[in-house]
Amino acid sequence: MQENKKFIIPHRGKITKQDRRRLKGHKSFILWFTGLSGSGKSTIAHAVEEKLFEMGVHTYVLDGDNIRTGLNKDLGFSAEDREENIRRIGEVAKLFVDAGIVVLSAFISPYRKDRQFVRNLVEKDEFVEIYVKCPLEVCELRDVKGLYKKARQGIIKNFTGIDDPYEEPENPEIVLETDRETIEECVEKIINYLAQNNYLEV
Amino acid sequence: MQENKKFIIPHRGKITKQDRRRLKGHKSFILWFTGLSGSGKSTIAHAVEEKLFEMGVHTYVLDGDNIRTGLNKDLGFSAEDREENIRRIGEVAKLFVDAGIVVLSAFISPYRKDRQFVRNLVEKDEFVEIYVKCPLEVCELRDVKGLYKKARQGIIKNFTGIDDPYEEPENPEIVLETDRETIEECVEKIINYLAQNNYLEV
Repeated sequence: MQENKKFIIPHRGKITKQDRRRLKGHKSFILWFTGLSGSGKSTIAHAVEEKLFEMGVHTYVLDGDNIRTGLNKDLGFSAEDREENIRRIGEVAKLFVDAGIVVLSAFISPYRKDRQFVRNLVEKDEFVEIYVKCPLEVCELRDVKGLYKKARQGIIKNFTGIDDPYEEPENPEIVLETDRETIEECVEKIINYLAQNNYLEV
Repeated sequence: MQENKKFIIPHRGKITKQDRRRLKGHKSFILWFTGLSGSGKSTIAHAVEEKLFEMGVHTYVLDGDNIRTGLNKDLGFSAEDREENIRRIGEVAKLFVDAGIVVLSAFISPYRKDRQFVRNLVEKDEFVEIYVKCPLEVCELRDVKGLYKKARQGIIKNFTGIDDPYEEPENPEIVLETDRETIEECVEKIINYLAQNNYLEV
């Protein structure tokens, strides 16, 4: 997708989002994965990144691994801190979109109003909400990180789905059902959506 | 995960910083501009971005325009808030470096320990400190935004150089003297430094 030959040198002045998109050969936007802990958000986000990368798309994944250990390490899991957590992630995602990057964000983001805040931060065609839907019982059975067990024991407080609410998206662009769809099917669904809606062109 | 064997971890693994750098065709790093208000940080950063962009380098500028109005709009100018301001900018710059982008950061960043904090966040060859040196008198004469006047009148408090200290870099990689060098000379100096130190290769 790197079309340097076709590349036209811009007029003197600041380089714009549109310039950066042309250099990369595609639009930039946020793929916002939301869902319960254990639903598969981060796994699918990385699988989609891999697929996009193979297609020459410039991507970056924001998830707990790089955000909770860095930018947001001062935040906990109270409602207030969750709101600030999502606010900052939204602002960072907006910077990446401005930089011409396809940013994949994988956080529980349980509150509707916080997701709406991020949607409003960017242009209409720059936010794709992906509901990674999976019944609580299945997530709890998976319990990859052992967090549900600790939440049930009361060791972890304010755990989404246990003693903190998860507000389902009302009109997500994409719904994945990870208790019945494979990773490959989920990835395909997302790539098809992007292709059909011209997200992968300049 | 046992109860749903279809849901497996992808074979290839996560896309790495090195992968993203290869896609872009160059290393990723931070150009950290520091200096007084009015010294020319943002102007030079944007001019360097333009030059790098013409060379096909994937860049992004972080400055007051996109940070103080977004991610850090909750922060003021107390010593504490300045520290948190630079901490967050450093963490965001690190994410951009991980994404394979050359990030140009243009903030006064007056305290030595805060700049050192950012330097320590990334690898040794990922941080280039650029001291945009200009005598206070010259910055104050320029007074592009009228801030020095307001600081002298006491309308703005904690203004760097007036009633808040600026700690000069001790060992910056590059020093620019904007009271005697043109923008073009400053840009050339930076591009030459990057070329000579193999920053523009993979």
